[in-house]
Amino acid sequence: MLAVTILGNNSALPAYDRHPTAQLVTLDDQLFLVDCGEGTQVQLSRYRIRWGRINYIFISHLHGDHYFGLPGFLNSMGLLHRENDLHLFAPPELEPILDLQFKAASTVLPYKLHFHPLTEEGVLVKTDKFKVTCFPTKHRIPCWGFRFEQVKAPRRVNPEKAVRHGVPAAFYDKLKWGENYTTQSGNLVMNEMVTDPAAKPKSYAYCADTIYDEELIPRIEGVDMLYHETTYLRELNDRAAARFHSTTEQAANIAKSANVGRLLIGHFSSKYENLDQFQAEAREVFPATDLAIEGVTFRG
Amino acid sequence: MLAVTILGNNSALPAYDRHPTAQLVTLDDQLFLVDCGEGTQVQLSRYRIRWGRINYIFISHLHGDHYFGLPGFLNSMGLLHRENDLHLFAPPELEPILDLQFKAASTVLPYKLHFHPLTEEGVLVKTDKFKVTCFPTKHRIPCWGFRFEQVKAPRRVNPEKAVRHGVPAAFYDKLKWGENYTTQSGNLVMNEMVTDPAAKPKSYAYCADTIYDEELIPRIEGVDMLYHETTYLRELNDRAAARFHSTTEQAANIAKSANVGRLLIGHFSSKYENLDQFQAEAREVFPATDLAIEGVTFRG
Repeated sequence: MLAVTILGNNSALPAYDRHPTAQLVTLDDQLFLVDCGEGTQVQLSRYRIRWGRINYIFISHLHGDHYFGLPGFLNSMGLLHRENDLHLFAPPELEPILDLQFKAASTVLPYKLHFHPLTEEGVLVKTDKFKVTCFPTKHRIPCWGFRFEQVKAPRRVNPEKAVRHGVPAAFYDKLKWGENYTTQSGNLVMNEMVTDPAAKPKSYAYCADTIYDEELIPRIEGVDMLYHETTYLRELNDRAAARFHSTTEQAANIAKSANVGRLLIGHFSSKYENLDQFQAEAREVFPATDLAIEGVTFRG
Repeated sequence: MLAVTILGNNSALPAYDRHPTAQLVTLDDQLFLVDCGEGTQVQLSRYRIRWGRINYIFISHLHGDHYFGLPGFLNSMGLLHRENDLHLFAPPELEPILDLQFKAASTVLPYKLHFHPLTEEGVLVKTDKFKVTCFPTKHRIPCWGFRFEQVKAPRRVNPEKAVRHGVPAAFYDKLKWGENYTTQSGNLVMNEMVTDPAAKPKSYAYCADTIYDEELIPRIEGVDMLYHETTYLRELNDRAAARFHSTTEQAANIAKSANVGRLLIGHFSSKYENLDQFQAEAREVFPATDLAIEGVTFRG
């Protein structure tokens, strides 16, 4: 299962009740927080997301609208008595900033925060269920995109067959990951007897702030869902390039060239109150485009 | 004229749409921002406060709920093309944090930010119209209270007399500050002929996070309006002391002992959804008490 919940979709200046960038990516039972603009902790509460289940945070770059909500979020998790380890992947310059903030406040977090500096393209985390990699995007300061993938998708339980073979519902989660079941009377129920093969593993790519960059295409090729920033409409092509941002048309062209399943667009400039034109322009090039509306969960 | 607009009244964990601490203090034509919790820039916009008129910011201490909104606010003022100098008074440990944040983002503000470290009790700013002093409060980390005073209050223009003597309305602001007016035909209109004496200068004291501390009393003696934190109701007296916070009853006793005009209470713990009991308990000791409700402007 792949889902992306939008927590903030605006560029630097908050406007029209739109918030700076943050997203929650769900891959099966894992929750990943991607960027953490000011106010993200309030957005997480507003959309009733269970903070405690977030074990990984990824920060694309150190413009404030992508991380000024992080110190407050880390503190609040401490106040809420988090105990589980938390893994933070971010540009290396963030570590001394957080250290100074914690020191100035005499803060001792009740959980272990692992800081992983982003320094080169490659795999950041890999388990038997999921994998996260990073790749560079081209922005005014060092910036990273992220790719989230199921290593293998869960098999699909056939409830009718499972019931017929006496497998209890409590065991379905194990069935999804390939286990066989032994009944109380000792009969072995082979996994294939009660499940259907897994679907193709799902994947999601997050292209944080970036100028139009065809070098992204091989890195995001074929993902089920792509987020690409669209700070401006196509008529502001020059301004986008000057500020290392992208337009609707450019994001849609990247999505098309990379053969992705669907496209989410966001990081809208505060100069635009109405966003209809963003959707219209992107769909002209790539019809399976949606606006990254806050509070909406998109499935890939 | 003294007015205080509440932008945030909650303690560390945001809850019930209450925000971390921030206030806007207005003394005649000056706007002072006092503390700047996460989300303050959005609160300033929500209550239609003209950011550009804020020239002084005071940060009481470096717990995140009192300053995590500051970097975003400073950045946004840059994006809005602020040009006027801005004066920031804060504990010295804040300066290297801001420096690292600006450096990581390659940010060059289009205005001059003057950092004034808070190191000892005394006068921070003094002009011919207003004065701001700081004094220590007792909290878990170094923390400062602030006292804002009119140096002299404006004289009160008597419009009937002013019209009779041919003083144009455009000159009233100068009349308030004691100037005489010369008519086009060369007649001198003495200020006293068209104005009434100024009222007693107004004053406001802000007691940020603090344990119950009678040493505050001489520092805030006789102010027209006092803000004192009340993180807890009186039954949690022990918890308040252990965490270097105050209760309703303690804040009201300080207000009473210091003979202040009125009391505002805030910094409510997130454990309380309903605040009625805060008001009731404080009023038992000091009747002229109000809850520091967000969006409300209190006049002293």
